Amino acid sequence: MKRVLIKDIENYLAKEITIAGRIIGLRKMGGITFVILQDYTSQIQTVFEKEVTAKFGEAVSVTGSPRKDERAKSGFELEGKSFEVIAKNTEDLPLDLSKTKFELQLSTLLDLRTVSLRHPRIQAIFKIYDLLLEAYEKVMREEGFTEIKTPKLLEAASEGGADFFKVKYFEKEAYLAQSPQLYKQIMVGVFERVFEIGPVFRAEPHFTTRHVNEYISLDAEMGFIEDYKTVTAMLNKVLIQIFKHLKEKGQKYFDVYGLEVPEIPAEIPHLKLSEVKKIIKEKYNYKIPQNTDIDPEAERLACRYAKEKFGTDFIFVTHYPWKDRPFYTMPDPNDKEATFGFDLLFRGVEIVTGSQRIHEHKMLIDNMQKKGVKPAGLEFYLDVFKYAMPPHGGWAIGLERVVQLMLNLSSVKEAVLFPRDVKRLSP
Amino acid sequence: MKRVLIKDIENYLAKEITIAGRIIGLRKMGGITFVILQDYTSQIQTVFEKEVTAKFGEAVSVTGSPRKDERAKSGFELEGKSFEVIAKNTEDLPLDLSKTKFELQLSTLLDLRTVSLRHPRIQAIFKIYDLLLEAYEKVMREEGFTEIKTPKLLEAASEGGADFFKVKYFEKEAYLAQSPQLYKQIMVGVFERVFEIGPVFRAEPHFTTRHVNEYISLDAEMGFIEDYKTVTAMLNKVLIQIFKHLKEKGQKYFDVYGLEVPEIPAEIPHLKLSEVKKIIKEKYNYKIPQNTDIDPEAERLACRYAKEKFGTDFIFVTHYPWKDRPFYTMPDPNDKEATFGFDLLFRGVEIVTGSQRIHEHKMLIDNMQKKGVKPAGLEFYLDVFKYAMPPHGGWAIGLERVVQLMLNLSSVKEAVLFPRDVKRLSP
Repeated sequence: MKRVLIKDIENYLAKEITIAGRIIGLRKMGGITFVILQDYTSQIQTVFEKEVTAKFGEAVSVTGSPRKDERAKSGFELEGKSFEVIAKNTEDLPLDLSKTKFELQLSTLLDLRTVSLRHPRIQAIFKIYDLLLEAYEKVMREEGFTEIKTPKLLEAASEGGADFFKVKYFEKEAYLAQSPQLYKQIMVGVFERVFEIGPVFRAEPHFTTRHVNEYISLDAEMGFIEDYKTVTAMLNKVLIQIFKHLKEKGQKYFDVYGLEVPEIPAEIPHLKLSEVKKIIKEKYNYKIPQNTDIDPEAERLACRYAKEKFGTDFIFVTHYPWKDRPFYTMPDPNDKEATFGFDLLFRGVEIVTGSQRIHEHKMLIDNMQKKGVKPAGLEFYLDVFKYAMPPHGGWAIGLERVVQLMLNLSSVKEAVLFPRDVKRLSP
Repeated sequence: MKRVLIKDIENYLAKEITIAGRIIGLRKMGGITFVILQDYTSQIQTVFEKEVTAKFGEAVSVTGSPRKDERAKSGFELEGKSFEVIAKNTEDLPLDLSKTKFELQLSTLLDLRTVSLRHPRIQAIFKIYDLLLEAYEKVMREEGFTEIKTPKLLEAASEGGADFFKVKYFEKEAYLAQSPQLYKQIMVGVFERVFEIGPVFRAEPHFTTRHVNEYISLDAEMGFIEDYKTVTAMLNKVLIQIFKHLKEKGQKYFDVYGLEVPEIPAEIPHLKLSEVKKIIKEKYNYKIPQNTDIDPEAERLACRYAKEKFGTDFIFVTHYPWKDRPFYTMPDPNDKEATFGFDLLFRGVEIVTGSQRIHEHKMLIDNMQKKGVKPAGLEFYLDVFKYAMPPHGGWAIGLERVVQLMLNLSSVKEAVLFPRDVKRLSP
């Protein structure tokens, strides 16, 4: 019999149909068996007036008749007649997936990832992840951005940092891209507005709840801007649309966590980093250590201030120091120690970094010299600035961090299907 | 003055507005200057009743009044009043981008890639590329597939082949993913239907017009199938929707090449590889060499036959040999030398490879043993098959090959923004 999808079941009331999926709930009570079945469209409770031989977690098909049921979340249940196991468990599941509460040690959750992902609570994370991808693709196109795919294998370590993974590339050595930065800027000269969704690779030996060594970056770059504020305004607009999409299609997954989709203000407040420093010293008596531009505690306090003062979870911190930002960042013409670089903080953590970029060849070369960045291997990029690059800027959103913070997950690794860290390369 | 987008110009007839973009055409005739300006939305001819000091390729803004012009492709032109250079060429462009015909040696086209991409003929390639991405994302979601992102850094060389790039990963050695194969199969156990768009890395030392070492793979995997034909039918349906999307939104880019969007038949014909062999021997007197399952000449002839017999550019070749297909491919129960593996050929070249997969643990282990594939490092994948994996299958589409063949480009490298081959790691 042709398979009916669970989402379409209301069209088949009192008719005999067959559905198929995985058993995500199983309860036997006085000769009656309740089986909750999930397919890729929805889930439903089926009721058998007998004992059923299937096990939790197995893939089955059920033939029976749908009927209305006010008590069911979907409004329907299925009266089961017959039953067929499509795929069995040949061993017991290594995790108990039947509990609604599903709180495991992070290491267990990840060691048994291929199975833990099947729990509805974990599925919800990656349904939201999917919706974020869908929204970004949609919204960026609506704003006239062209989707690009740039290489992840590079000849030169493009941003002068040390945190690159090295690859043996035939007779040469190559590097894995830390970001599509230089390529997306080149593409501003081609399409003016571009976006990319792709993996980035960071060889940072971090052991924190906010770092992984491979993640998905939602990049954008746009030309013909006034200054960095054109970029933050566009990002603000894009985020409003993305969160609207999440609210429309994803609230049910937030419900699993008892949460709401966060509210984005029409104008996310902007503060200069120097202002942030002053405020958190005065209000919270916190001083950022000398050896860094901003530290996690200061990010947390900046967000606390944004919440208290502006009633929002989001704040743009701008004018990051020249000495801490990469060579392509536009210096602030009014303050030689500052740049038009910014971060977007959300609930205490940086989720986006961006800036206006330098677009003049001479200024770029001078800035590299001052910062001690060697042009060797970057000529392909530098030469583009001889050919009329308009003022431009862009951003990189850390997709998994957004998911983590929206759902208050304890680690960003919970928002990566198969996370990679210093110790973990598998599954 | 606020910038007006060129696509919106018809709303400003006879009003004074400012547009901005790049000069992609410049002609001076008896004191009159014609400037064709391109922004990220469209292009338009502006006319100045004087000499203008801008150069081809520069980024400018033009203030003036739009008027109707029947001769113009868009139906409008702009009467230019004033003119401002936003970004200059500080050196002459290394390529003449002003010619409509733009036929360069492949090596020149790629060596000067950052500039050659600005030619409208090259831009058209990547606008089609963008539309294909948009269409895939849209159509796959319509069919209930969840978008996933799987790791590109792997602990073990996952498919037993030799063509992996090695990465130094902290104290360990890692490999770059040749495909998301094992991970997307695992995800069938989670979401039943998944798709992924991501880079894949092939360390094959090929020097052909159809290979690059890094490209974008459009992957999919689906559960609860009957057999491989459920998969080819889904792929057929998806391709019809994708090409429909291309036709609606992309015909103008095909026009640049004087081409039409290819027609996909409602049912792409299927032929077993053994039938293909027989047919091309009988009809074209060609015999596939002993050391391979199929070679490029046989693929070409299979497509020639599909064209002559069925009037289509597409053909599924199925039942590839057991000895040439990877260990996870479902064997044909009726022919122990064959599998339920297939390729989709288009205009003489493979653009998709796929199969039904083995979904039973014991069969999988047995098949690996027979093929001599060691399970070490693959336990995380193999163990999933103990936990009720439904019958499933999927495909991988080579995005750049589809673009190449649709536009009759001489090499697949022309369909990659910044291609990577044995000799080329930059730009």
